[in-house]
Amino acid sequence: MIILFATAGSGNCFKAQLLMRQLEIAHHTVMVDVIGGETRKPAFLRINPNGTVPFLLLEDGRGIAESNAILWYLAKGSHLFPQSTFEEAMAVQWMIFEQTKLESNISPARFFTTIVPERREGMEDRILAWQSAGRQGLTRLDAHLRFQDFVAGPRYSIADIAVYGYTHVAGEGGFDLDAYPAVSAWIDRIKAITGYVAMPDLAQAA
Amino acid sequence: MIILFATAGSGNCFKAQLLMRQLEIAHHTVMVDVIGGETRKPAFLRINPNGTVPFLLLEDGRGIAESNAILWYLAKGSHLFPQSTFEEAMAVQWMIFEQTKLESNISPARFFTTIVPERREGMEDRILAWQSAGRQGLTRLDAHLRFQDFVAGPRYSIADIAVYGYTHVAGEGGFDLDAYPAVSAWIDRIKAITGYVAMPDLAQAA
Repeated sequence: MIILFATAGSGNCFKAQLLMRQLEIAHHTVMVDVIGGETRKPAFLRINPNGTVPFLLLEDGRGIAESNAILWYLAKGSHLFPQSTFEEAMAVQWMIFEQTKLESNISPARFFTTIVPERREGMEDRILAWQSAGRQGLTRLDAHLRFQDFVAGPRYSIADIAVYGYTHVAGEGGFDLDAYPAVSAWIDRIKAITGYVAMPDLAQAA
Repeated sequence: MIILFATAGSGNCFKAQLLMRQLEIAHHTVMVDVIGGETRKPAFLRINPNGTVPFLLLEDGRGIAESNAILWYLAKGSHLFPQSTFEEAMAVQWMIFEQTKLESNISPARFFTTIVPERREGMEDRILAWQSAGRQGLTRLDAHLRFQDFVAGPRYSIADIAVYGYTHVAGEGGFDLDAYPAVSAWIDRIKAITGYVAMPDLAQAA
């Protein structure tokens, strides 16, 4: 059986967990204590030399790092995979936008605001910088979602799951999602999709 | 005819230019003056709301931003596209690794070292931080390329072009590529592939 290595509270791990739930993919989940340093220990680095979660270990021993690459592998051939070459390119475009403009800002701002607020001291300037850059990303995403219901085209796909992972918890990083009405409406659309399970509920089920 | 908007000296634009040369894809190239602010002007933002190059404008008016998404679209169905679902996932994995761990560090370090050295003053601390983070990315890439000839599998593909874009000019950002023997050998393998054209030569041909 395939194994997903994940950690609680991570938007990147949530993406893989949500997709596997919506596609009903049988798997084991192994929870890893990232804050406790488990991903830097030799035992985990032998499994994933990148030292990151989520990490998908296939039955033949091959592995996939990067949340969006895991989505790509697991969804291929399903109704959640992009339906044309152009939609595939849009999925890649927005997955990279997500990792470079959204996740990279929302995730650290949220980390020091909600996950380990006790480590916030001395980080104020960097948090403000992440929030400023993250707002630019959200503004761009909002403009995009004014013209289409879903990220990569007319249908819900892995591109939505990728972008949704951290965007929907941006409030925990000090962002005001009410300022992005098209993003907020898209979040509501995703929450209404069959098989949707919220991040904390998925973590408890693992 | 499709149009590629590009700027000289950009590793991201080079990726698309090299692929189009190797696949012999007919196109126009429109050079854009990024440093002069052209990508922030309304005329360009009407074409690409993300305000970035490279940008691929298709004949039907649709467009693709993000260099790696452009590679994905243009290579689909060709011998340079990943040959299995696992190789597709590896391509996505390393494209995201490239944008978050390599390009995001090598590109700004190179910008202030080689492209606009006159703006370097006061940037020394940030340049050191980019170089430190970039070395971590190169170390990881080197470990990966010790076990396989190409990034996403046994064959040269768009994953190599994606990672190659900025990695092969890392020396211009103050990185010592001799410290990464597997990366250096891979760079030599890529330069020997049919249709390879160096970045400055491609820019002049545009």
